[in-house]
Amino acid sequence: MKRISLAHGDGGELTHTLIQELFLSAFQTTASPMLDAAIVSMPANEIAVTTDSFVVQPLFFPGGDIGKLAVAGTVNDLAVSGAVPLYMTCGFIIEEGFPYADLQRIVNSIAAEAAKNGISIVAGDTKVVERGSCDGVFINTTGIGVVRHKSKAAYLQEGDAVIVSGSIGDHGIAILAARNELGFTTEVESDCASLSAMIEDVQHGTGGVRIMRDPTRGGLATSLVEICEDFGITIILEEEDLPVHPAVAGACDLLGFDPMYVANEGKVILIVSAAEAEQTLSLLRQHPEGAEAAIIGRITDTQSGELRVRTVFGATRKLRRLHGMQLPRIC
Amino acid sequence: MKRISLAHGDGGELTHTLIQELFLSAFQTTASPMLDAAIVSMPANEIAVTTDSFVVQPLFFPGGDIGKLAVAGTVNDLAVSGAVPLYMTCGFIIEEGFPYADLQRIVNSIAAEAAKNGISIVAGDTKVVERGSCDGVFINTTGIGVVRHKSKAAYLQEGDAVIVSGSIGDHGIAILAARNELGFTTEVESDCASLSAMIEDVQHGTGGVRIMRDPTRGGLATSLVEICEDFGITIILEEEDLPVHPAVAGACDLLGFDPMYVANEGKVILIVSAAEAEQTLSLLRQHPEGAEAAIIGRITDTQSGELRVRTVFGATRKLRRLHGMQLPRIC
Repeated sequence: MKRISLAHGDGGELTHTLIQELFLSAFQTTASPMLDAAIVSMPANEIAVTTDSFVVQPLFFPGGDIGKLAVAGTVNDLAVSGAVPLYMTCGFIIEEGFPYADLQRIVNSIAAEAAKNGISIVAGDTKVVERGSCDGVFINTTGIGVVRHKSKAAYLQEGDAVIVSGSIGDHGIAILAARNELGFTTEVESDCASLSAMIEDVQHGTGGVRIMRDPTRGGLATSLVEICEDFGITIILEEEDLPVHPAVAGACDLLGFDPMYVANEGKVILIVSAAEAEQTLSLLRQHPEGAEAAIIGRITDTQSGELRVRTVFGATRKLRRLHGMQLPRIC
Repeated sequence: MKRISLAHGDGGELTHTLIQELFLSAFQTTASPMLDAAIVSMPANEIAVTTDSFVVQPLFFPGGDIGKLAVAGTVNDLAVSGAVPLYMTCGFIIEEGFPYADLQRIVNSIAAEAAKNGISIVAGDTKVVERGSCDGVFINTTGIGVVRHKSKAAYLQEGDAVIVSGSIGDHGIAILAARNELGFTTEVESDCASLSAMIEDVQHGTGGVRIMRDPTRGGLATSLVEICEDFGITIILEEEDLPVHPAVAGACDLLGFDPMYVANEGKVILIVSAAEAEQTLSLLRQHPEGAEAAIIGRITDTQSGELRVRTVFGATRKLRRLHGMQLPRIC
């Protein structure tokens, strides 16, 4: 079996061949690949920039792989910031001995997901470390986009609806299952998906979106706590309205997890004016990724900066950031 | 001793605290740190983008550390592309158990080198992997700059001078020495340095620069082979004119290395019109990083695309890319 060697990362002949054979043919990069930096045009004077490292284990899992995850994660961070993704960089740290065919599969997955989103991969980097010095492959991506929609956070007000675009916790549970850490089998698949097309449709179809977030690590609750603290708003979630797949609910019950704290990789949280909430839902539901979109709560005041949840018994309790539940290597 | 735990990377409370305490206070980021993407202004319609992962071992070495290296590497890739660095992203992959004080030292080093170059760190990411799943810390940086000087590669012609801004091979030998892989001690320090100020001075002081490159992994020879192939030019280097520190030459002799293939992290190759070569040298020599700048060769034709070196005995031989000399984890 063809494997990656240290010489593939030494900057010499084999690095050159790897870039030519594998990366350039998959990414169809137009910029001169061997230059120190890519020169690209930027049709805007405000850009959005995001970066993420991906260390998910296993590399291939039901619903996706590290390559698709890396692109989708980058796309979603830009989309929820009101930006249209244009360019991406891609840095690989590869363990000596990693199967070439697996790298090829990951690179193809990146290329396919980038193409689907109209993103050019403009710069890359490949490092190879000795066997045992990393875990297969780590990928870093940086995304650059053009800002198309300004934040309307200043309009956040009492009564605004909190919407999530679909079921929560699927990604985290799928990864645990793929690692055989559940102690039982499950049909849960990762929700890993690029949401920029759906988000663009929503932005065009309604003027009511105040802010959006991408609830990945830390789950829905942690993202909403950040929002509440950043803008000083209080949100009350309705526990019974949270979309949770039965298999995810079951796994969480058994493991003692709360699905609100389990990672997602293809969901968006939207805070929307009360008047436009139904319109937003119907726009989301026209996309497969938004088919299970739901209104899950409301802003109840704009002063105290708390996230609360009303349980099925009618009482409310305060939610904090994820704390002490270790689910490493999920993205 | 305070150490990094898996929970520092779970996206919850401890991640929040780490970002607030360590990264934000060092980087003085003005963009809202918890947003999915940073929104920044871009005063140009052409931008330069570069990305690199840094996996150097050891993390701290004579002349620098992984943090300084990460910034300088990014700055230099942009500067040789004719761009002024403006923004940088910074992604950390950290091994569980990594000493907090070492992370602090690295972050401070990044912050200091970024500030020296007027670069804002606009986006970041922190992942923590289990003990044994990476080697201390890996850093990915992406740099974004404004293009100030267009490539003059179209003007490359016979007689153009090839200049290197100083001694070659220092970084590679310093890293091997720091790993105790030489079998003897040496005083060699890494040349790790940000060169954008020096390069800007050269660009302003002479119109004769055709192209520049940053000869890191693969060394001077590999970078020049890339140039010769990309532009179809032939360069003949004069072996006796190559600036090599005696300690580096001695180490290379003993190890069977050629300093032309050993990595640099603070050097620039410039190809300059014959008429402006001396002026370029004197501009370089006004900077400490360029004190040992030298003319090391000439373009001899613009068709065959070869790199050749004239030895001290007068014969010339063809040079290829680095091949088969494994010096992993040098950057």
